[in-house]
Amino acid sequence: MKLISYSRGTANGWGVLGDDGVVDMTGTFPSLRAALEAGGLADIAAAAGDRGADFPLDDVRLLPPVPDPGKIICIGLNYGKHLAESGAPMPEYPTLFVRVTDTLVAHDEPMVVPSVSSELDYECELALVIGKGGRHIAREDALAHVAGYACFNDGSVRDYQMKHSLAAGKNFHATGGFGPWLVTADAIPDPGRLQLRTLINGQELQNGNTSDLIFDIPEIISYISAFTPLSPGDVISTGTPEGVGFVRKPPIFLKPGDTVEIEVEGIGKLRNPVIAEPS
Amino acid sequence: MKLISYSRGTANGWGVLGDDGVVDMTGTFPSLRAALEAGGLADIAAAAGDRGADFPLDDVRLLPPVPDPGKIICIGLNYGKHLAESGAPMPEYPTLFVRVTDTLVAHDEPMVVPSVSSELDYECELALVIGKGGRHIAREDALAHVAGYACFNDGSVRDYQMKHSLAAGKNFHATGGFGPWLVTADAIPDPGRLQLRTLINGQELQNGNTSDLIFDIPEIISYISAFTPLSPGDVISTGTPEGVGFVRKPPIFLKPGDTVEIEVEGIGKLRNPVIAEPS
Repeated sequence: MKLISYSRGTANGWGVLGDDGVVDMTGTFPSLRAALEAGGLADIAAAAGDRGADFPLDDVRLLPPVPDPGKIICIGLNYGKHLAESGAPMPEYPTLFVRVTDTLVAHDEPMVVPSVSSELDYECELALVIGKGGRHIAREDALAHVAGYACFNDGSVRDYQMKHSLAAGKNFHATGGFGPWLVTADAIPDPGRLQLRTLINGQELQNGNTSDLIFDIPEIISYISAFTPLSPGDVISTGTPEGVGFVRKPPIFLKPGDTVEIEVEGIGKLRNPVIAEPS
Repeated sequence: MKLISYSRGTANGWGVLGDDGVVDMTGTFPSLRAALEAGGLADIAAAAGDRGADFPLDDVRLLPPVPDPGKIICIGLNYGKHLAESGAPMPEYPTLFVRVTDTLVAHDEPMVVPSVSSELDYECELALVIGKGGRHIAREDALAHVAGYACFNDGSVRDYQMKHSLAAGKNFHATGGFGPWLVTADAIPDPGRLQLRTLINGQELQNGNTSDLIFDIPEIISYISAFTPLSPGDVISTGTPEGVGFVRKPPIFLKPGDTVEIEVEGIGKLRNPVIAEPS
């Protein structure tokens, strides 16, 4: 099942995306996060199965699948070859950082090259959304806490990341692509075997597989839940494989006019145009 | 003017704290953040001035002054002597990290020593709350964007901070004391000359002055707003002076049964009991 959050005219809502269009679910819970908090996904699936589409996908502007997550935690340096290209040693623990919500951009929404830097880099990632909350979640129970999966473009402003702070480089406004939708966990039986890649203007620049994750998804969930309670709607992005732009010779950065796509097997393609920060 | 957010019986609200008690403002805007978003503080002050208290402060449980900030950005290593005691070089740019909202605890709410570490350390800080949003805020305009100030205890789990990641060490559940109230900016004409200190069980362990900030408040606001839009209700904590626990010989960490107080001149005293993580 594909779940979307959307803006349509002046109203925001969410729904199930089927072959014929969007089955609107805003009448059941006001948001996807509220549905997750109520543990209502199974009911949603049953209810949507009985109904036809309310409107075509073209009628809406997509929002991030969860537009208002309580927290967004990202893992850095989580693929061996990306570690090597970054010149970083093998980490003993997951390398974490937090993103603020207003870094997020939805499918087809522009990623923004800021006025203070020209070093906006792409990072294709598999993100997950928590369905069932918990603290001290055991590795073997972790996947049962996942509502679903989406593509993530962990856009990184490299000069700030390297010379200022990891948090600044990862928190520029409108640099985190997230979408296009949430594919529920039942449709992704093994998130540890998904091909993922980045295309810029159609050219492939990253191509990896989540089987190469240093800390796999159950490990990440278990680790994070040791220090913070995970809640429905929380977003975790799992890291990027090799092929990022800043280590290339010459470096490749996202430029206004580019189109960047993140494709994850079983989910689809997250597409974002790139623009300069409006003055 | 002192602004509080509170829980009373089953309802949450906010109001103005006067000598006689709380003038409830929940009827004007549903939350302090909503009032800030509406730019309504001047009207609030005028309205509250005409009214008597609705209930005594003892009738409520305080919440963090803004319980639901859109973002919490903290500055590390921002006092010269703390830099020296931490063995860090003089930073060229502010050292930033992000806290997630559920790290926050209100006045009198317990700070929690986690089950996975015994190294919870205190850090007294001056925090500010944004009133008027903006991007690329000039240094000379910055203080006009501040709604008010509060005490912050940037509780840090040092082994995670040093050996795992800054983000993990700073994001343990219930480690960020914030309160007891927001003192509006008009009552703090110069936030760059405030004494601040930490007391544990009555014993003073930190004592500094915001005049020693390496990056002062206008600089911090200007710097952050270069990469992210600041919005009403956003929280920025400005760093801690020397005297933290982990560099002492022997180290001092917060233990269950302790009471930790953060006092900032012109604001008051934020008090938190310390407990062990419930099993």
